[in-house]
Amino acid sequence: MTYRENIEGLDASILMHPRVWEASGHVEHFSDPMVDCKSCKSRYRVDVLFEMLSVKNKKAISEEIVKSDNSVTDSEESIKEYFAGNPNPYLSLIVCPNCGNKNTFTEARSFNLLFKTYIGPLEESSNIVYLRPETAQGSYVNFNNIKESSRHKLPFGIAQIGKAFRNEINTKNFLFRTREFEQMEMQFFVNPKDDIQWYDYWKEQRMNWFVRYGMKPEKLKMHDHEKLAHYAKAAVDVEFEFPFGWGEIEGIHNRTDFDLKRHTEYSGKKLEYFDEQTKERFIPYVIETAIGASRSFFAFLCNAYDEEEVVKENSDGTSSSETRTVLHLHPALAPIKAAVFPLVNRDGMQDIAYNITDDLRKHFKVFYDDSGAVGRRYRRQDECGTPFCITVDSDTLTDNTVTVRDRDTMVQERISKDKIVEYVNGKMI
Amino acid sequence: MTYRENIEGLDASILMHPRVWEASGHVEHFSDPMVDCKSCKSRYRVDVLFEMLSVKNKKAISEEIVKSDNSVTDSEESIKEYFAGNPNPYLSLIVCPNCGNKNTFTEARSFNLLFKTYIGPLEESSNIVYLRPETAQGSYVNFNNIKESSRHKLPFGIAQIGKAFRNEINTKNFLFRTREFEQMEMQFFVNPKDDIQWYDYWKEQRMNWFVRYGMKPEKLKMHDHEKLAHYAKAAVDVEFEFPFGWGEIEGIHNRTDFDLKRHTEYSGKKLEYFDEQTKERFIPYVIETAIGASRSFFAFLCNAYDEEEVVKENSDGTSSSETRTVLHLHPALAPIKAAVFPLVNRDGMQDIAYNITDDLRKHFKVFYDDSGAVGRRYRRQDECGTPFCITVDSDTLTDNTVTVRDRDTMVQERISKDKIVEYVNGKMI
Repeated sequence: MTYRENIEGLDASILMHPRVWEASGHVEHFSDPMVDCKSCKSRYRVDVLFEMLSVKNKKAISEEIVKSDNSVTDSEESIKEYFAGNPNPYLSLIVCPNCGNKNTFTEARSFNLLFKTYIGPLEESSNIVYLRPETAQGSYVNFNNIKESSRHKLPFGIAQIGKAFRNEINTKNFLFRTREFEQMEMQFFVNPKDDIQWYDYWKEQRMNWFVRYGMKPEKLKMHDHEKLAHYAKAAVDVEFEFPFGWGEIEGIHNRTDFDLKRHTEYSGKKLEYFDEQTKERFIPYVIETAIGASRSFFAFLCNAYDEEEVVKENSDGTSSSETRTVLHLHPALAPIKAAVFPLVNRDGMQDIAYNITDDLRKHFKVFYDDSGAVGRRYRRQDECGTPFCITVDSDTLTDNTVTVRDRDTMVQERISKDKIVEYVNGKMI
Repeated sequence: MTYRENIEGLDASILMHPRVWEASGHVEHFSDPMVDCKSCKSRYRVDVLFEMLSVKNKKAISEEIVKSDNSVTDSEESIKEYFAGNPNPYLSLIVCPNCGNKNTFTEARSFNLLFKTYIGPLEESSNIVYLRPETAQGSYVNFNNIKESSRHKLPFGIAQIGKAFRNEINTKNFLFRTREFEQMEMQFFVNPKDDIQWYDYWKEQRMNWFVRYGMKPEKLKMHDHEKLAHYAKAAVDVEFEFPFGWGEIEGIHNRTDFDLKRHTEYSGKKLEYFDEQTKERFIPYVIETAIGASRSFFAFLCNAYDEEEVVKENSDGTSSSETRTVLHLHPALAPIKAAVFPLVNRDGMQDIAYNITDDLRKHFKVFYDDSGAVGRRYRRQDECGTPFCITVDSDTLTDNTVTVRDRDTMVQERISKDKIVEYVNGKMI
């Protein structure tokens, strides 16, 4: 694990001044094009509606669009963009996926994804506030506070983990798209002349991070944005291959000085940096690494889940094959780090196992289990991803050793019971 | 520190189904009585308006109210309640604190403190959702999930730390009353026949907790509620003496089976417990300990802040007195656990100090400082509450020891630089 000296933590507000979201561009730009079905009142995001077309229809319409308009290339992105614009003569040919009626859609309209509420008792426009759609803006508006109290020199970063909210029309794919979700992001402030170097650095670091915590490299890819957002000079997504297809789990962006400049403009407060050595004053560039905590948790779950055929020893001495469900989570990510079992519930083994559990609890999350055969207890822990199962047996009574069984290899080794904390901590690095 | 085996963590949603807040009683009951000034349109919480009265006016009106209505006792609580009701002939005698006009207030009306927003693009009543005004309800609606996945027997608890939102009319006293705030609470589920025992247990535990982390006992008191909320059988506040007066920082409540019963009723899903030993099935009682994390942070800050007269040694060998600003935060609460200084910036002391900082960073938050006189560096750390300052001096070069200076006693001792982690960790217990 890397312990960085130049990253500070922050927990900014969820409800910030509405001007923050004007400065960020969210009030103006953060919207999806949508259509309504005039017959059944269903509402669709236009890109989702496009995706719902049959393969044949999609192909036919795509070809028509490309033929009719020179500015449209044959990439799906470009076609969807045309589809979301007005007028779109093809929209009238599509049936509503809900009611099946034709020629029933309104023209596309943009719908802002900010959740809004009102401060105070009066629901009037001067009292509108928004739930933050991303945590990052909190780091920009707090830039001066953190720069001054932490006394960091450039480059330095501000990192947050927190809830964000987007009023998505269509939530889908379990944790992949939800209206309330958790972000973990870091805004790294650099001298503008070093932006490319740091952008490349963070791309590499972030990819390594996923791999270090067990992501299969073949399930990950970097996808450079063809079309850049209004704030970005360069942008790449880290994508994971979910069971439903490739999806973004992190974005790394060179945001330039866009954000600090805009917040300076909208707040009237300068957000800049003075370099003591060169005596230069400038607005730093921002390299952002923004990961969806809920999404990447979901990705780690998909990556870790496995059903394996293993040999089962039967009570009559024969063996057969059975399916073992196992979550191969990296020990640092596993919710329970170790489970402790007495082999049998006699000879004081329960007390010893219980005392070990009590000691381990001070260091990490641990689970005591004395019910059912040990094989069954192993399986329960395999299913929830516990990397180590510690068993107290009759040898423990004489030599103070226990067995540690590894979830992935299923190999057992004996270690002294005084060494369990060290053993488990050593695997979490 | 107590490491409890029977408390599970939870991070429930901020936006939950609106029925949750009907079941909890918040949609119906979570409101403050308010009045508007018809002249200047200022809006006041009635109890705040009452508190804004001059001592003389308050006394006169209180006496009038008690005389006129037999049901009103002479406690301020009882008088405010009358004052918030309709009709209240005394309201017309008060001047508006903003515009100074008399006979200008509307009758008291109740204003719900839930922040509301809309899921989806249509702002219609069927799409209303609320921002949670407390985290506790998340523990009740997730009771079955946690009971089943954790396999706990009663008694057990569910604990959360998270943001909550209340659309307060009047925010005041810095962090004491804000619209967005952080709660830390624990809902402890018990057999109904043991409720009194556990209520008393948690009262004691919680008071001890504040004292263990350095709260001055004379700044704390328990205040039993005279009038119980609709859900409570017994309730007590832990109050802290802020600079502006006594204020609640934690509430401990015996909530009975009110919540689980209501959520059962509103969701149609049974929330109950089956005791394997006695074969009884029942709805557990809840003992709640709900602390405002932001408020108690504020209380810890007030409690820790001090300005002391200390002796200052001058460069000419004389001494004088100066004021030392110091935050006496318990080491476990201090944001920075240790600062590391090279005594002078030569002979390799900076490198050694820097390497120590780098090692310590893996264990706790640490700050490296090599600018200015050591005395000034001590003062900076005193102001932000850093309990230990570690100085590398010429002896370090020969014997690998450093000085550790205690923030509170200002006494220095020499320890081996390999023992710093152990030393600091030992103080955080």
